[in-house]
Order: sequence, then structure tokens, then C-alpha cells
Amino acid sequence: MAERVAVLGLGLIGGSLAGALRRAGSHVTGFDASAQAVRVAAARQLVDDCVDNLTQLLAGAQLVVLSVPVLTILDLLPGVDALTPPDAPILDTGSVKRQVVGVMDRLVNPGRAIGGHPLAGSDRSGPEAADPELFCDRPFVLTPCRQTQPAMLERAKDLVLRLGARPVIMEPEEHDRVLARTSHLPQLVSSALASRLGAGDLAAAGPGLKDMTRLAGSDPRMWKDILVLNRENVVGEARAFMAELAALVEAVNRGEMEQVESVMRRGGAASAGLREQVAV
Amino acid sequence: MAERVAVLGLGLIGGSLAGALRRAGSHVTGFDASAQAVRVAAARQLVDDCVDNLTQLLAGAQLVVLSVPVLTILDLLPGVDALTPPDAPILDTGSVKRQVVGVMDRLVNPGRAIGGHPLAGSDRSGPEAADPELFCDRPFVLTPCRQTQPAMLERAKDLVLRLGARPVIMEPEEHDRVLARTSHLPQLVSSALASRLGAGDLAAAGPGLKDMTRLAGSDPRMWKDILVLNRENVVGEARAFMAELAALVEAVNRGEMEQVESVMRRGGAASAGLREQVAV
Repeated sequence: MAERVAVLGLGLIGGSLAGALRRAGSHVTGFDASAQAVRVAAARQLVDDCVDNLTQLLAGAQLVVLSVPVLTILDLLPGVDALTPPDAPILDTGSVKRQVVGVMDRLVNPGRAIGGHPLAGSDRSGPEAADPELFCDRPFVLTPCRQTQPAMLERAKDLVLRLGARPVIMEPEEHDRVLARTSHLPQLVSSALASRLGAGDLAAAGPGLKDMTRLAGSDPRMWKDILVLNRENVVGEARAFMAELAALVEAVNRGEMEQVESVMRRGGAASAGLREQVAV
Repeated sequence: MAERVAVLGLGLIGGSLAGALRRAGSHVTGFDASAQAVRVAAARQLVDDCVDNLTQLLAGAQLVVLSVPVLTILDLLPGVDALTPPDAPILDTGSVKRQVVGVMDRLVNPGRAIGGHPLAGSDRSGPEAADPELFCDRPFVLTPCRQTQPAMLERAKDLVLRLGARPVIMEPEEHDRVLARTSHLPQLVSSALASRLGAGDLAAAGPGLKDMTRLAGSDPRMWKDILVLNRENVVGEARAFMAELAALVEAVNRGEMEQVESVMRRGGAASAGLREQVAV
């Protein structure tokens, strides 16, 4: 019989994950606090069925995925643990991992819980934008808690592979430090750049500006939680970046073009490395 | 008989422009100081023929396009004017316009000169990356000099339309101010962001980081000229941006999430406006 998967939260990530698991043969039941999200997920056949309360969602679940904003994940985890059969793995997909894994370690059944973060996304949000192919060839970080049982880690890895993604095991603290640099700071930079554009600037915009402001289209509600929970790492990274940018701008101002070229060449090398790593 | 176009510089922009005009029925002769660029442009049939000196390139030209780094445009303009039949328009494609148009105004035949800047590009460079479709549906800014004759402006507009692009007439000073915000600052930001990435960061990189560091792959030699010539506007824009970002980061640090959300919503609106304006 098909594995029964419960997906809590049918936004871009939860909806995509539901659709991908359904294609891979699981029976997927979905839940979302938004009736509109439920309607869209059902209409797009991302789920087999939907329920309107957590008790129903979790009662017979063999695998549970939490894809809601990360502060909500922290709130819901104890209740989800209590309502889910004790041998069913519980995985989340939040963008910050230290506090999630901290809560997982204190659950009644901590051995079946594991942190997760798919490094995939879009500037669009909601089940309208969900795509079962979203995770293909993308890294999917897994951060076991201290108590996660090896068998549960194996089941989580297997889930990641069924999504077409690549499992990457990380410590939660390391995840949060690295993501501050590779994701959370770039989000703030994109928002700040875009927030300064006037209507008249758009006519003179090229493809580079579009790249640099695409992230600014992300959902602020999701980002508020991430920035609250990873505040220290984000602020530290942002200050280091602003020092780097200020030095570069002063080199431009003083006409020290060898210094400018050296930073640009270093950035160019990293950019080239990234293009090799990240499929379009 | 086909119009004879001379293209000076067969990089990404010059090569793309040559290829597009050739497709549109012009006879395109190319010149580049790099023998390798000439070979690639010829092999890719971006040009009808190539010559190895400016005298030969310009002698019978009916339209001249300068697509070299912008400091080189300033150096070459008087000589190009002297070698080109006086009724042939001379257009450049440099990313800074004030000084270019200043030199154009002091030519022996200033009435046939006009500044240009196609708002198209790629993180790749050279004739290897040239694409005759590069300008399709893109803005192509024209900045007449004080002396540009109306008939020459019309011929330049006609050229832009033949490339599939949209002519946008601007004052050179306005162009340089706007481009500092929409292109030159984003380039510095992208380079600074990318320059801070370590090898270990790449494994945890998502599509957002790739967007934010794509510009960092641009050619530093071309950018040095742009930053030297538009220094004041770029430094002014960069300082205003850094103040905006610093305020946003301090709001994150103090947990003032309403302030953070307000900046993100403003950025999101600009990002949405841009997506409507700029075709992928």
C-alpha cells in the first residue's frame, strides 16, 4: 500500500513537495490554514486529499512534513509529535535550523524528528507557484537533532532522493551560519536595492537589475521569521559585507582601479564556481 | 546595394550588433584589436568580412558603430571622425555617456555623431557569447550631442528598430545618473557579495544566490572604464544604498520587524514592476 504522507502547509515548498511525493507514488494528505491554498493545491492535484484539522491529518500518517513559516514550525512541533504515530518520521523544511532542532530534541519522541531545508525556491510563492520539479538536482540539507535515530536519518535521505534532490548532512549551527551568507544576506541586499528604485528607473533597466531584484519579490511574512531566528548570523554577515562594499566603493572613489579589479576578479571566480554547481 | 556598416570592436555587444545588422541585410565589416576575436566573429558569421586597420574599415563606411571599452571610445572618436566619410553616422555603445557626448560635440563633423547604449548584456563576454537576438525588445538609449543633426537621430532610431530594440532618447547626464543606480551600483554589489563566498559556501547555494552573483561574472576590463568615468554618480548612489541597507540591518538587529517588512514590501513592488517591464 502507498506510504501515507501528511504535508502541513501547502505553500511553494509544501505544495511542490506534496506534488513530487504524489508523483513518486505516495498517498499525500494536505492541510493549510488558508482555505484558498487548499483549493489551489487540490485543483492543481498536488495532493490526494485535504483535511481541515491536525488530528485528522496526522492520525494515520507514516511520514510528516512541516512546511510553514519557521516560527510556526517551532510552535506546532510538540503538538504534531503528540498527534503522530510514534514510528513516523517528522521532517520540517524551515530556512533556519538551530532552534528547530533544539525543539525537536525536547519532544516526547525526539528520535523520529529531523531538520530539513531544501535549497530551492522562487520569487513566487503559494501553491499557485508550486512545481513538483522544484527540488530536482538541488541540495536538500538535513540537520539531525542529537536524538535522531540512524534509521530515521536513512528514511529522510530516501525521501530527499525521491524528490530528485541531493541530501547534504550539516550541523544546524553551521547551516545557519552559511545560509546567513548565501541566502539571508542576499535577500536583504536585493530588497534594499529594489526599494530604492523609482518608476522612472524601470525604463532604463537591463537584465542584470532584474537578476539583482528578483529575490526582492519573495514573501515578507516568511522572511520575517527567518530574520528573527537567525538575527545574530545575519547581522554579522551584513556588517562584514558592508565593510567589503564600502572598501570597494572607496577604491572607486580614489581611482584605485587595481584594487577594484582585484575584487571583481575574486567575485568573478566565485560566480563561475557557482554556475558550475547550480543548475539553472 | 546593401548599406555598408563598419563595426569597431567585436565583443559581446559589437559582435551581437554586427550579427543582427547582417541578418537585417547590411554588409558588415568588422575590426578588433584581438586576432582571436576576429577569428571567432568570422567563424560565427557575425560579419561579412574583417579588416586589420581603421583606414580600411572606415573608408567606404555608410554607418559606423564603436563597441569598445568606453575610455577607448573617447580616444578613438577624433580619428574615426577623420577617417569616415562625413555623411556617415557614428554611433557608440558605451555604458557611460556624458564624456562620450562631450567628445562628440568637439569633433570636426559633430552633426553625424550620436551616443548610444543598448540595455542588454550577459555575464558572458566576447564574440563567443554574441547573439543577434540580444537586443530584441530591449531599450536602446540614444543620447544626441548638442550638434547631432535631426536626420542623424532618425537614422540612429532606424538602426535601433532594425536590431529589434526600442529607442529611448535621454540626456547624457540623466542617463549616467540613472545607470549608476540601475546598473553600475548593482555590479559593485554583486562583485562584493560574490567575493566573500568561500568554496564551502557553494554546496549550500540556491538559485537566489546564483541570481545575485551572476553580474559578478562580467568582464572587469570593461567595468574599470565605466567606474572611472561615472565615479561621482556611482559613489553617490553606493553611499545612499549603504545607508538604506545599514538601516534595514539595524532594524533586523533591534527586532523592528514592521520596519523590515515595510522595506521588503517596497522592494517587492519595484521587483514586480520590473518583471513586467523586462522580458526574460
